[in-house]
Amino acid sequence: MSGVVVTQITRADPSVIDRLGRSGVATVHEAQGRTGLMAPYMRPVWTGAAVAGSAVTISAPPGDNWMLHVAIEQLTPGDVLVLAPTSACSDGYFGDLLATSALARGCRGLVIDAGVRDVADLREMAFPVWSKCISAQGTVKETLGSVNVPIVCAGAAVEAGDVIVADEDGVCVVPRARAADVADKADARIANEAEKRERLARGELGLDMYDMRGRLAEKGLKYD
Amino acid sequence: MSGVVVTQITRADPSVIDRLGRSGVATVHEAQGRTGLMAPYMRPVWTGAAVAGSAVTISAPPGDNWMLHVAIEQLTPGDVLVLAPTSACSDGYFGDLLATSALARGCRGLVIDAGVRDVADLREMAFPVWSKCISAQGTVKETLGSVNVPIVCAGAAVEAGDVIVADEDGVCVVPRARAADVADKADARIANEAEKRERLARGELGLDMYDMRGRLAEKGLKYD
Amino acid sequence: MSGVVVTQITRADPSVIDRLGRSGVATVHEAQGRTGLMAPYMRPVWTGAAVAGSAVTISAPPGDNWMLHVAIEQLTPGDVLVLAPTSACSDGYFGDLLATSALARGCRGLVIDAGVRDVADLREMAFPVWSKCISAQGTVKETLGSVNVPIVCAGAAVEAGDVIVADEDGVCVVPRARAADVADKADARIANEAEKRERLARGELGLDMYDMRGRLAEKGLKYD
Amino acid sequence: MSGVVVTQITRADPSVIDRLGRSGVATVHEAQGRTGLMAPYMRPVWTGAAVAGSAVTISAPPGDNWMLHVAIEQLTPGDVLVLAPTSACSDGYFGDLLATSALARGCRGLVIDAGVRDVADLREMAFPVWSKCISAQGTVKETLGSVNVPIVCAGAAVEAGDVIVADEDGVCVVPRARAADVADKADARIANEAEKRERLARGELGLDMYDMRGRLAEKGLKYD
Amino acid sequence: MSGVVVTQITRADPSVIDRLGRSGVATVHEAQGRTGLMAPYMRPVWTGAAVAGSAVTISAPPGDNWMLHVAIEQLTPGDVLVLAPTSACSDGYFGDLLATSALARGCRGLVIDAGVRDVADLREMAFPVWSKCISAQGTVKETLGSVNVPIVCAGAAVEAGDVIVADEDGVCVVPRARAADVADKADARIANEAEKRERLARGELGLDMYDMRGRLAEKGLKYD
Amino acid sequence: MSGVVVTQITRADPSVIDRLGRSGVATVHEAQGRTGLMAPYMRPVWTGAAVAGSAVTISAPPGDNWMLHVAIEQLTPGDVLVLAPTSACSDGYFGDLLATSALARGCRGLVIDAGVRDVADLREMAFPVWSKCISAQGTVKETLGSVNVPIVCAGAAVEAGDVIVADEDGVCVVPRARAADVADKADARIANEAEKRERLARGELGLDMYDMRGRLAEKGLKYD
Repeated sequence: MSGVVVTQITRADPSVIDRLGRSGVATVHEAQGRTGLMAPYMRPVWTGAAVAGSAVTISAPPGDNWMLHVAIEQLTPGDVLVLAPTSACSDGYFGDLLATSALARGCRGLVIDAGVRDVADLREMAFPVWSKCISAQGTVKETLGSVNVPIVCAGAAVEAGDVIVADEDGVCVVPRARAADVADKADARIANEAEKRERLARGELGLDMYDMRGRLAEKGLKYD
Repeated sequence: MSGVVVTQITRADPSVIDRLGRSGVATVHEAQGRTGLMAPYMRPVWTGAAVAGSAVTISAPPGDNWMLHVAIEQLTPGDVLVLAPTSACSDGYFGDLLATSALARGCRGLVIDAGVRDVADLREMAFPVWSKCISAQGTVKETLGSVNVPIVCAGAAVEAGDVIVADEDGVCVVPRARAADVADKADARIANEAEKRERLARGELGLDMYDMRGRLAEKGLKYD
Repeated sequence: MSGVVVTQITRADPSVIDRLGRSGVATVHEAQGRTGLMAPYMRPVWTGAAVAGSAVTISAPPGDNWMLHVAIEQLTPGDVLVLAPTSACSDGYFGDLLATSALARGCRGLVIDAGVRDVADLREMAFPVWSKCISAQGTVKETLGSVNVPIVCAGAAVEAGDVIVADEDGVCVVPRARAADVADKADARIANEAEKRERLARGELGLDMYDMRGRLAEKGLKYD
Repeated sequence: MSGVVVTQITRADPSVIDRLGRSGVATVHEAQGRTGLMAPYMRPVWTGAAVAGSAVTISAPPGDNWMLHVAIEQLTPGDVLVLAPTSACSDGYFGDLLATSALARGCRGLVIDAGVRDVADLREMAFPVWSKCISAQGTVKETLGSVNVPIVCAGAAVEAGDVIVADEDGVCVVPRARAADVADKADARIANEAEKRERLARGELGLDMYDMRGRLAEKGLKYD
Repeated sequence: MSGVVVTQITRADPSVIDRLGRSGVATVHEAQGRTGLMAPYMRPVWTGAAVAGSAVTISAPPGDNWMLHVAIEQLTPGDVLVLAPTSACSDGYFGDLLATSALARGCRGLVIDAGVRDVADLREMAFPVWSKCISAQGTVKETLGSVNVPIVCAGAAVEAGDVIVADEDGVCVVPRARAADVADKADARIANEAEKRERLARGELGLDMYDMRGRLAEKGLKYD
Repeated sequence: MSGVVVTQITRADPSVIDRLGRSGVATVHEAQGRTGLMAPYMRPVWTGAAVAGSAVTISAPPGDNWMLHVAIEQLTPGDVLVLAPTSACSDGYFGDLLATSALARGCRGLVIDAGVRDVADLREMAFPVWSKCISAQGTVKETLGSVNVPIVCAGAAVEAGDVIVADEDGVCVVPRARAADVADKADARIANEAEKRERLARGELGLDMYDMRGRLAEKGLKYD
């Protein structure tokens, strides 16, 4: 099953991707019915990073980053690399040299269920990375993996060309076919939240604004 | 046992609460005999936050944040929300809308043994949160919990009206009845530390300043 | 086995230590054949810290920081304290008073497979610490440990006088006897990387620069 | 706060305790409104153990088992020792000698949020233990803790004299004052379950037996 | 996305399923190119269990087991229930009553990325379960999930009708469409291993049997 | 540093090794001053295993078990294989074929800071294994490691020829040079414990037998 590079992948419309990015992870995740979120251990290696792009997926052996080189050739501007090791690994698969190469290909960032290194450089280069950990432990280039095959990354299924949205709240995957619909729903949520925020800021209670008191009483809530 | 909201709670004297806040977690924890500290996985979601306030406690089901809306109505200025799920959960119970509502009620912050989201917004709003993790995973509003009942949060027992002190070192709970006494002891510790700090800065050794050499020798310490 | 303080230790050449520090953890770790790296849970308590120095090692009981006072007397300028508890512990062994004392002795930082506290102060003092966690939980001074004996800290074997290199990528231990050789190899790596970085930045692929295509094909990589 | 031994504690009625034991953890936990359960990492060190008894509580420093000796003097037949370290610790606080001593005092078992050792002996002696882990790492006898004070053990608040119910499903704490009421409710649940079990065994669906179809439809469940 | 029950699913050939079961997890995982393995924290709740069957998948909210009742109606003899919560949860979703009901429908076992309870009963009933943990913590029936939709369980993607193979080595998912091919390859591996086992048992070295010495030398292995 | 096989190692006296084995892990660990214990996550894969032998050490890349084949050639009867991956890994490095080969060379068991598979076979063969986990995930044979070099395994430093003692309490390493001395001390401890066990069984308290009351009072213990 490994040792395959899929070279033709279909991506979502760039304007849809950018709209999803502006909505952010929490809103996008809600807008698509609370699916596609990666596990909360996936954290940005520097604060403030936020990105959206098309997934170029990598299935890699533990401690072996050879396929990153192969994947970088498959990048087109606006892509995000998404790497899942075939078994749990915390090694530093990616550092400043690979980031330099990925940036040169128009890559918008990396999502990796493993470790990265040279994080001071990554921050300086403003190359966004979400990872399981930071580790200087290097990797080898001995065993094949695959590129642009379906993977499970930090608990979320990802296919090549799916939209990756990542910010300080984590990482969310939007299946390509649903991207436009999810972007619409996310925009609608945001429009809807502005008015709520204002009312809450003026002191109105969620209990009243969302009309919760009746249902709470019905479920048996008692005030002592 | 769940489905109860205690509406009348007794709080500590505001000036005592503020003195505890100025002392900080490490000093307060020492001053009350090393009790009341939450587990070290409780971390501020943005750097620099420090707060002290009266606990409004929430016992909530996993993945259900309904009781947060109920608890916000019970807030008075100077309170801190403290939420413990009834079983381990990493969902994002709280985000910018709830923070807006809590702020409008004078809430000083949130301590939650679960996840939160919209952390970029929380930082911008300067709303302090200590949590187990950050997660965009949303919650439902289907099942009752309780407000202002005794809870265990991140390993520490908390009752409504207890004083919560939280900063970069973690979160400490001071039982309301002991708050004044602990504040006095904390102030005394701080007064006492200034002179020690100065002597240590001048190069005096702790071994001498604390007169440890005799007891170390007695226990059998050997210098090779 | 405990209760011993070794007072005479041999350190590496200061210029070698500084060269290792300039190379950084990821490069040094590679240069010495990918050995000596501590586990990735060891993180700096404030962002931006980077240090190199000679290890003064401490083997301490869980929840007992007495030996830190003993170790501080053994410090000479340029040293780094390295503490491993004899069993897993997350207590805050070290805070601003001990940092003040260590700084007064010329100490460059602390590496501890346990917790520390007063982290806001440590950042303000610019005292670098790499730790397993942050915890306000204090320690006692009741039981002997040892100073400058061989320890295992976060999975890495450390002897007194070994060189500790620590930065945002983690912590690496260089055995004293190998320090000069490793520094040479690290310098060579860095010289070598500048040209590669430039070529990658211009868009050259790692696949070509490292001449990987033949070996990938030989292993059976297929492009679909 | 530490260094206190409370010598007079009130225990629940022995027949109530035994009824709770026969009901088992899962039923008792349900019967008291899903409160009092310790975290699921608390596991029996040998398979088949099941016990109920009155808690003699111990608050102990990390890596220090002195208070176990103090607590054993406070045991009366039918008691269960419950130990919580003041900070997370995995050391082996308890082994065959302490088990021999506890058994001689009529102790029914140990619940410990830390480690134990000599587990092959404990199994042979049929001394039941629920622990966080198994570890041969010994402890010291240098620092005071307390006996029969309120503790938080594995996330559950325990007071001396509370009823501990433990079996293969975990450990549950029943507050002494509620024990008789909970035992009644647990008995009622068991009586009630026998008939349900029979109907389910005959192939009746829970959907029908609990009359769930209407409410599922109302919530919007769709069959494709 | 939730609130859907897919009622028509396609299953693999029963004889293929049974052949996969006889091969066992380690062999099947190898035979299908090392894909489909769940994370190693998935463990049998009683020793000796081994099973193969068709997946009936459940996506359930944290702490809510309502969909288990819905899923049981969808079972046909030879099926295995596979439950993934929508966020990490350790609650006990499943106990002896649900096992009784599932057994009555011909269910062969449960794979659940969460907790179960009544494990002494499950062992006595010989109902096989692989779970993340054991917990008496009960669940509610308030929120919809889905049945027979694609899920990610313990890191592995599962679709309804896929073949689940589980034994003491863990849990492996074989996509339905590949089941016959994988069963053939697994059988071939087993045939092939018998002879190897015999040669190794007679003292022949793997180095010679697999002809590794040349390649090891080529890679630079040195004997000191 | 990798790619080295040390072929000549010195082992401890077989009778000393067997005496250490009879003493067991907890006693041996105490007898050598509480050093050398591996982390408590190292557990036997089947209950009842207990072993002592000379360490043949393996440093292996993550997910690569090639060096196990190399190490098996270096075994002499009475040896125990000890494998540490160069970075954290949970893959199943070892199964029934390798166990067959190791047994044929007189190997007494395996200690591995990673995973193993075929555990039902290992139990049937009575081949003892202590591991971090159980996983069917296979490994490759692509990258060199080393055999009989110093390693850190599960937090303990191990050199080839050191004595490994392992039982249900965990795994302890005795440096070869200290083995005879530690065996003497362990025997003395056991002789000494028999009388204590008897006195405790008759109801004598540890408080009296160890004469603790005076020192407890001196430290300030108060009985309420």
